[in-house]
Amino acid sequence: MSSEKHTAASAETLAIVGVGLIGGSVALAARKRGMVRRVIGLGRNPARLEQARSRGIIDEGVTDYALLGDADLVIVCSPVDRIVQDVLAVAAATPKETLISDVGSVKGAICEQLATQLPARFIGSHPLAGSEKGGFENAQAELFEGRVGIVTPTAETPPHLVERMTRFWQSLGMRTLLQAPQEHDRVLAITSHVPHVAAAAVAAMLSDEAAPFASSGFRDTTRIAAGDPELWAAILSQNAPAVQRALATLMQQLDRFSDVLANGDLAQLQQLLLEGQMRREVFEATFGGAAGKSTS
Amino acid sequence: MSSEKHTAASAETLAIVGVGLIGGSVALAARKRGMVRRVIGLGRNPARLEQARSRGIIDEGVTDYALLGDADLVIVCSPVDRIVQDVLAVAAATPKETLISDVGSVKGAICEQLATQLPARFIGSHPLAGSEKGGFENAQAELFEGRVGIVTPTAETPPHLVERMTRFWQSLGMRTLLQAPQEHDRVLAITSHVPHVAAAAVAAMLSDEAAPFASSGFRDTTRIAAGDPELWAAILSQNAPAVQRALATLMQQLDRFSDVLANGDLAQLQQLLLEGQMRREVFEATFGGAAGKSTS
Repeated sequence: MSSEKHTAASAETLAIVGVGLIGGSVALAARKRGMVRRVIGLGRNPARLEQARSRGIIDEGVTDYALLGDADLVIVCSPVDRIVQDVLAVAAATPKETLISDVGSVKGAICEQLATQLPARFIGSHPLAGSEKGGFENAQAELFEGRVGIVTPTAETPPHLVERMTRFWQSLGMRTLLQAPQEHDRVLAITSHVPHVAAAAVAAMLSDEAAPFASSGFRDTTRIAAGDPELWAAILSQNAPAVQRALATLMQQLDRFSDVLANGDLAQLQQLLLEGQMRREVFEATFGGAAGKSTS
Repeated sequence: MSSEKHTAASAETLAIVGVGLIGGSVALAARKRGMVRRVIGLGRNPARLEQARSRGIIDEGVTDYALLGDADLVIVCSPVDRIVQDVLAVAAATPKETLISDVGSVKGAICEQLATQLPARFIGSHPLAGSEKGGFENAQAELFEGRVGIVTPTAETPPHLVERMTRFWQSLGMRTLLQAPQEHDRVLAITSHVPHVAAAAVAAMLSDEAAPFASSGFRDTTRIAAGDPELWAAILSQNAPAVQRALATLMQQLDRFSDVLANGDLAQLQQLLLEGQMRREVFEATFGGAAGKSTS
């Protein structure tokens, strides 16, 4: 393999470990944009891999890491509690030129462990795109377009790995941002993990009797609560300290609402709602500006 | 006026007090479905009324209740803290045959006060349709289609009023449900008011530094936080006791998350997320079944 190939965003052979929503979408997007000649999917269930192959998501499905030897780039799309072991298995089965990344929603623990073991081969990623509907059946080639792709080097990561992964996500249509893994986890606790907990907690309140009276506000506020509990339990527990801190902040804010409702302080109640509205506008300006018209 | 006219869903002349998102959409929907011959809009701002008229939302804009004399049906679409006074002003200005309803998101206080003063002329409604984007500029003739319209009679409400208002909302494409006003407020605290508070509290957590990392999960969970703080402060404060109780339930659920995160109890964490996912599925089955494919 030439060094030119290593700095280009394209890969002759891309391997996806875990061909679900994200893995399947990476495969479709890379193929659609002509970035890869061949996509290998690695999974545990041969029947599922064959379905993914027959849908044109991957070219070949394998269940054995030893068959990944050709891959120039391997993206590990496993649940966060399996990423470290899967990355190590990929590293053991592939030549040292093969670059390995992941798409986990938590980065601190994963990147710290792998930084010491695979400093020159692994770099963490987190593409901010997804859906509460998992599985390659819901994969889309356009999933990443206009969205943010986070790349999380550690102090040990060589600059050319940062450059390669950054270009890869950019080639899929993403705007990329660099973040230290621990910083990523602290911020994502606020932007993603605690919103998930809040959505689940609000959804859990819905009695059978109340269900017919829930409408579009309830639908949107609780949408992410439809996500897979197993995947999300792993994410939340891998980021437990930051999630606990953000959850404490949320509960303080809810306590303030409770207090002003008890006091009947209408001006203060408006003020609390205004804070939410203003921060929501900051979000819209950032997200809307980045992604154009938002889609669901 | 004939008695036939009073029991039909249609009205010769419909008056809307407060021509905003909901009032404008009622006007457009009633007109589109051929239910009315003429729509009068009452508001405080003549320039805004003229804009609504030139957009074909109303036929005539008036600022004086005395000019509502012709209306067969008046729908008061004011903010909840102005509904009682506006309904009383409509009642004073119109003949006793004119039916008056409202679209307020809180019903207990409003319906109790009006039940004693206008038992034979007023009946509360709450069409479960809306948007965080207010104003008649966002009004849509299809806003009510497939959605739930709640009609909230009291013990004093004559059955023919229940029938007329039920048919009116059904003619706009709604499925209607009857609910006692206090029961409405208790249920809506869970399905709408506390989700709004949660959305506002989650949105308020977003620092400038975190904003670029917020994505579609944050967008949906906080969408309703973009709603007008003044309107929502009035809603929450008119339903303060029920909102406080539902908020306490939400905080208990968040405390459970906090505890299992502190204990590192992955199975219990999954269980909590599963509760949210299951209740979300109950919602989807109810809402999706009612409204067909959900739209935003």
